[in-house]
Amino acid sequence: MSDTRQEASPAITAVDHVAIAVNDLDKAVEFYAQAFGAAVAHRERVDSDEVEEVLLRVGESYVQLLSPTSPSSPVARFLEKRGEGIHHVAYRVEDCAESLRRAVQGGAVAIDQAPRPGSRSTTVAFIHPRSTFGTLVELVEEGPTSTTLEGS
Amino acid sequence: MSDTRQEASPAITAVDHVAIAVNDLDKAVEFYAQAFGAAVAHRERVDSDEVEEVLLRVGESYVQLLSPTSPSSPVARFLEKRGEGIHHVAYRVEDCAESLRRAVQGGAVAIDQAPRPGSRSTTVAFIHPRSTFGTLVELVEEGPTSTTLEGS
Repeated sequence: MSDTRQEASPAITAVDHVAIAVNDLDKAVEFYAQAFGAAVAHRERVDSDEVEEVLLRVGESYVQLLSPTSPSSPVARFLEKRGEGIHHVAYRVEDCAESLRRAVQGGAVAIDQAPRPGSRSTTVAFIHPRSTFGTLVELVEEGPTSTTLEGS
Repeated sequence: MSDTRQEASPAITAVDHVAIAVNDLDKAVEFYAQAFGAAVAHRERVDSDEVEEVLLRVGESYVQLLSPTSPSSPVARFLEKRGEGIHHVAYRVEDCAESLRRAVQGGAVAIDQAPRPGSRSTTVAFIHPRSTFGTLVELVEEGPTSTTLEGS
């Protein structure tokens, strides 16, 4: 098949967000405002992941505060086992499918075999921490209707 | 004392870096290049913290890969206790002393009571994870001679 489109670089282009699992979302939002002057950019309940998330805008990145909405949520299990703390780091990419392919070629073990919808109209894929030095990694591609830092 | 300078905002302005503790620095650097296309921006041995660090450039942020240079290093103890993984998150600020003051006023518990020198000519202060939802937080002020993303 002939394809004359310019290929998107598979390289990660930004820290999209640092996700922090917390027990009390409102308390964490209030602390980040008071202590660090960080403002809320977005709040969303993501039923597929059984979490509620708040995105705080920090430069071109977000701090993502995460709380479980159900005891069976992976974030609930994380909080039980490890307590509050950093849950994962997400890197922004131009093309999630292409970046996932490149990552797997480079030795990453995919949790999501193919990209899937994330919050705020993004497309995402998670990579297993056993292949990434103990770090749960998410690749995030913003969609045409995503709340972007530039556009909001 | 009269002071007519414009005050620096104490708010955090960017994710300066996400620090990941790893056992084998070279292996992690190679993986991040192959899987994520991330390039090395800086490498430094920080004897005061008994670590060697590599900064990978990712947008306006860095991924900081950290390995201990001595068994007594805090990072060595982290690796022993928790294994490889995210060690801390660092937020960039304009004025580390002012931002630390604001954070403490807002409920943060300082590990460093006053800012101190960090790697690549930065000024830094750490905040205790018990006050920041289980997350070890570093505030980073770049110095006039810091390797900045814009200037390099």
